Amino acid sequence: MPEKVDIILLGGTVVTMNPTYDIYPAGGVAIRHDSIVAVGAAAEIQKAYTADDIIDCTDQVIIPGLVNAHTHIPMTLLRGLNDDLRLDVWLGYLMPLEREFVTPEFVKLGTRVACAEMIRSGVTAFADMYYFEDAIAEETAAIGMRALLGQTVLVFPAPDAATYEDALVLCRRFIERWHSHPLIQPAVAPHAWYTGTPEMNRACADLARAYNVPVHTHVAETALEAENSHEQNQMSVVDWIASHGLLETKLLAAHCVHLAQSEMFALKKANAGVAHCPTSNLKLASGIAEVGEMLEIGLNVGVGTDGPASNNDLDMFEEMRLAALLAKTKSNDPTILPARQAFMIATIGGARALHMGDITGSLEPGKRADLAIVAMDGVHNRPHFANNPDAVYSRLIYAAKAGDVVHVMVNGRWLMQNRTLLTVDETAALAAAAEVARKIDTFVIKRESSPYNKLVLLSGVKRQESFEVQVKVPDIDKTAVLQFLQSAHCKISRHAHYKQYDHYFIFDGNDPDAARLRHREDEFIGDDGQAYQTRSRLTLTSQAERQEFPNVVMLSRSRYLAEADRSLRFYREYFAPAQELEVCKDRLRWHIVYQDTDFAINLDRLILPDIPGYFLEIKSRTWSRTDAERKAGLIADMVQQIGVTLDTAERQEYAEIALNAGRTP
Amino acid sequence: MPEKVDIILLGGTVVTMNPTYDIYPAGGVAIRHDSIVAVGAAAEIQKAYTADDIIDCTDQVIIPGLVNAHTHIPMTLLRGLNDDLRLDVWLGYLMPLEREFVTPEFVKLGTRVACAEMIRSGVTAFADMYYFEDAIAEETAAIGMRALLGQTVLVFPAPDAATYEDALVLCRRFIERWHSHPLIQPAVAPHAWYTGTPEMNRACADLARAYNVPVHTHVAETALEAENSHEQNQMSVVDWIASHGLLETKLLAAHCVHLAQSEMFALKKANAGVAHCPTSNLKLASGIAEVGEMLEIGLNVGVGTDGPASNNDLDMFEEMRLAALLAKTKSNDPTILPARQAFMIATIGGARALHMGDITGSLEPGKRADLAIVAMDGVHNRPHFANNPDAVYSRLIYAAKAGDVVHVMVNGRWLMQNRTLLTVDETAALAAAAEVARKIDTFVIKRESSPYNKLVLLSGVKRQESFEVQVKVPDIDKTAVLQFLQSAHCKISRHAHYKQYDHYFIFDGNDPDAARLRHREDEFIGDDGQAYQTRSRLTLTSQAERQEFPNVVMLSRSRYLAEADRSLRFYREYFAPAQELEVCKDRLRWHIVYQDTDFAINLDRLILPDIPGYFLEIKSRTWSRTDAERKAGLIADMVQQIGVTLDTAERQEYAEIALNAGRTP
Repeated sequence: MPEKVDIILLGGTVVTMNPTYDIYPAGGVAIRHDSIVAVGAAAEIQKAYTADDIIDCTDQVIIPGLVNAHTHIPMTLLRGLNDDLRLDVWLGYLMPLEREFVTPEFVKLGTRVACAEMIRSGVTAFADMYYFEDAIAEETAAIGMRALLGQTVLVFPAPDAATYEDALVLCRRFIERWHSHPLIQPAVAPHAWYTGTPEMNRACADLARAYNVPVHTHVAETALEAENSHEQNQMSVVDWIASHGLLETKLLAAHCVHLAQSEMFALKKANAGVAHCPTSNLKLASGIAEVGEMLEIGLNVGVGTDGPASNNDLDMFEEMRLAALLAKTKSNDPTILPARQAFMIATIGGARALHMGDITGSLEPGKRADLAIVAMDGVHNRPHFANNPDAVYSRLIYAAKAGDVVHVMVNGRWLMQNRTLLTVDETAALAAAAEVARKIDTFVIKRESSPYNKLVLLSGVKRQESFEVQVKVPDIDKTAVLQFLQSAHCKISRHAHYKQYDHYFIFDGNDPDAARLRHREDEFIGDDGQAYQTRSRLTLTSQAERQEFPNVVMLSRSRYLAEADRSLRFYREYFAPAQELEVCKDRLRWHIVYQDTDFAINLDRLILPDIPGYFLEIKSRTWSRTDAERKAGLIADMVQQIGVTLDTAERQEYAEIALNAGRTP
Repeated sequence: MPEKVDIILLGGTVVTMNPTYDIYPAGGVAIRHDSIVAVGAAAEIQKAYTADDIIDCTDQVIIPGLVNAHTHIPMTLLRGLNDDLRLDVWLGYLMPLEREFVTPEFVKLGTRVACAEMIRSGVTAFADMYYFEDAIAEETAAIGMRALLGQTVLVFPAPDAATYEDALVLCRRFIERWHSHPLIQPAVAPHAWYTGTPEMNRACADLARAYNVPVHTHVAETALEAENSHEQNQMSVVDWIASHGLLETKLLAAHCVHLAQSEMFALKKANAGVAHCPTSNLKLASGIAEVGEMLEIGLNVGVGTDGPASNNDLDMFEEMRLAALLAKTKSNDPTILPARQAFMIATIGGARALHMGDITGSLEPGKRADLAIVAMDGVHNRPHFANNPDAVYSRLIYAAKAGDVVHVMVNGRWLMQNRTLLTVDETAALAAAAEVARKIDTFVIKRESSPYNKLVLLSGVKRQESFEVQVKVPDIDKTAVLQFLQSAHCKISRHAHYKQYDHYFIFDGNDPDAARLRHREDEFIGDDGQAYQTRSRLTLTSQAERQEFPNVVMLSRSRYLAEADRSLRFYREYFAPAQELEVCKDRLRWHIVYQDTDFAINLDRLILPDIPGYFLEIKSRTWSRTDAERKAGLIADMVQQIGVTLDTAERQEYAEIALNAGRTP
């Protein structure tokens, strides 16, 4: 008497991706509730099981659903907005736009569009990293896809969190809500080591360990990143994240383009997953990951599309094909990553990389029923040869297209049948997406003349810490400051003397990111009093939010740096400021460590406008509001030790002082 | 009064690819007979023209048809047969199979399948290189696609020509038949410099110049090829083909992966086209061409899929996307080959590379109406941004799929409308292709045990010249030979002394390529009589066709060499010969030049079987039957000068002598 199940798939070639890579040329799959009950030859399945719902898959191929191991799905709504740019320029362009547009509604809509595209191309599970991940989880769960969803944590102000501390709070709440959901695996997503502080990364690792959830982060995406790590941290990227606890978590490391072999071994030892993103890495000229070597070492490698703003689609058929092709050229060996192995990393390999290998990624009894059924009747994939059973992998990797996917099931539930989506209203989603695109168009056209965008397009920018704590005291006794600098409390790490020629470009308009652009030429003065070197930089600062502690000012604002390699005349014409202002000063600067904390101390003499006496400045920058508050306290200490009265503390910046000096000559 | 035309396309975004890259967001195209009459804004076109046939293209994109700049289209019938192999192994596997299966009927069927696939993906013109090109031309013309078709010329026996001389005859006839056809541009296709002789390549160049037709050839595909050229020819590949007249033709150079900058300049000066084949170059680990640099130099670069047995499809959307992606990583700069330029090389760039830039590749009045209409409504390519008109290139390059193509027209004739092919019976073609695949399956399964395939799979093979001319005389006077060698007629280029230990594996069965496998260990003997080095090689020889001149034997057979880096025991077990035979001899060998022609002279003393006296052998190999006949005459001369009577000339090879010695002990 055959056993009753819910659904039987019958007659197609079943590509199991089980440990022995079994293929059933005329096979069957029996499914009950959310799980696979049996996989085998069609005749055997028919003998042992019966179901009301029997799907004829003759001439089709039944595969485990594809696993998209790294993406930022709501960015479907930014697809094709801006391509062929340098990574820093592109991020500089995109991030302010995200701050403007990204809301819970935005990410839900983007998720809907992305899931529609992924289901259509046979994807059943994905690993995301974005903002408002809670909203993404709601939408994903409703649509019925499986996902590892990482709530982003980074030091920049994000659409959903002004500081990384706020992001960590969000992240904890997100994990608590979703951590036992059958489809959603919440995760902590520190964006990357270089967009975080040591404390931030450690806090992420601690949070992930506390809840036993994965960490999803970018690792060694570019050569510059790897170089910077060696330069700034005196260690490799993987060593750095290891030293901050991230290898003690269930890690999913995206990109891994620039790893030394020792880093691969460290990731292997930590059972980390690697998400290889071939299209994105090519498009941003990041390089080609050593996937052949990673697989030889035994790393759990998956394949990801990365976000659709840098790909520009979510097509895993293209991605696994490109993975197979690139590995060969990278290894200079056409036998590397053959079709079967390429298909492996796109299915069970990806599932293992997401730390979900026990429930998905292959067609095996007991696993969740996550699968896709692919037609093989297109002229682009004919004829078929039968002399080698593995030829089905060649057809899947080297010739099949996303459009060949006919049915998709996740967790035993049909998400697509006969190319019709069952859980997404695609038409409505695309109409809403068109509406968002129109708004972004308007925003972008308006911003095209903004100093921020002009700077980004010209030379790319580097973002600086959001919080600046500072005190400024005029007419100071130089000797008292020098005594403090020589005291036991204060350790000088660097000293310099220069003349600073600043030109401020001041802008009208409502661009909050671009209140003022400073062109600064630093002329370094040697011990002999001679100028021996100059450097020119542009600094774009937004309107500051200002908070005053007793006599210490804390500024919170966006600040972007760029090298100035063109003439002041060029910049004047290019940015066409509403107003211009000149400030010149002689600056003695010390970088010091006080109470284990870095500060800069300036003794400034204003030449233009000509204001007699020295100004004392004590400053520090940070990404963390808590840290800023602590530093404000330390600054007050130091001022006291120098023995200065704070009654005369100057709350204006030099540009304002100059402006006012101009007004009252 | 509006002018009457045949067809008007109205309302879509027209991407013209004219010299100023004009785009008409709501545009129109007017077509009369085979040509474009006007391109412009829809309103203008509607005002100026009228037609019975007006196609509404609203929300679609009208593009010049894509140009597939390098392929071997009948290989659709071999798609997915064997992947992930080294190039030499793959060719070794495929070429004998082609000799068995490739007929005019085969190439016509393969062309039908390929054209169906190409039309479906928006291709309107392609450049082919294969065998029986006349049959391919008939089929292509009937289907209605535009093509540059190159009749292959190479030294190996091909399915349509036993020698390159026969291929040249075929090629001339092919050109004469097709050179004024409106769709077919016949071309001469010397396969590559390294599969030809200097004479062969020069003859190809002469033929192409005589008829003013293009030459289609492979250039610098692999690093090994470039190295070999420097080693063998003391010059680069491009210098070599230049010195054989090929740069004085309308050249289409496929691949060009390993070019020095000077070679690029030489190609540019010659107005040569380059066919960049990214997928194939990755899949065979050939490398990544310097497309960014080529375009900077101003070369006419097109994009090609290469044959579908090494891709495995003919999808130009994937190919142009991959071209854009790879160029960035190769140049380490994400701004290289932006979407617009990638689309340029896939359209007008490709047309120029095929020397057809005056009639196709862009939508301009006066050009042939070769175009495709692409839907942009798929979820994978939404939403659309309007702030930058060039975004349409991003959509075409980074997100569009072959399946998005809706209508295709070539030379003013519809080949596809609403995704229905109008000139190919796809169902019948695919059924016939399945039949061919079944036959190939049977053949391959049967051959799986053949010594030839086993050798190929083990280590790859190098093919030797087809023709061998030789004389063998037993019991010779050594002094007379030495005197001849010292005479003025004879110039010795190399001399060696060795002992040769030969094991012959003899096979039963009907494999014409594998009569006998010889394992030879050469032990080199120094002047001091000591052995100082050994080398082991395998030589697989087919049954020879034998032709006897007066006392000189000409053998025509396949002969494959491979390094033997494993033990004789291993090979014995691996090949399991029906019979085995041992021959041992002491050989004095001279390489000489006689009448400007290379020969080898051997003085052999047979040790096993022990036959007293010296054997004299005079030998030469060649790819050309004519050349073989000339050499037979020169050998007869030499034998006469040595003063030997030819009455005792031995017509058997040593293996036969040994066999017979064994039989009559």
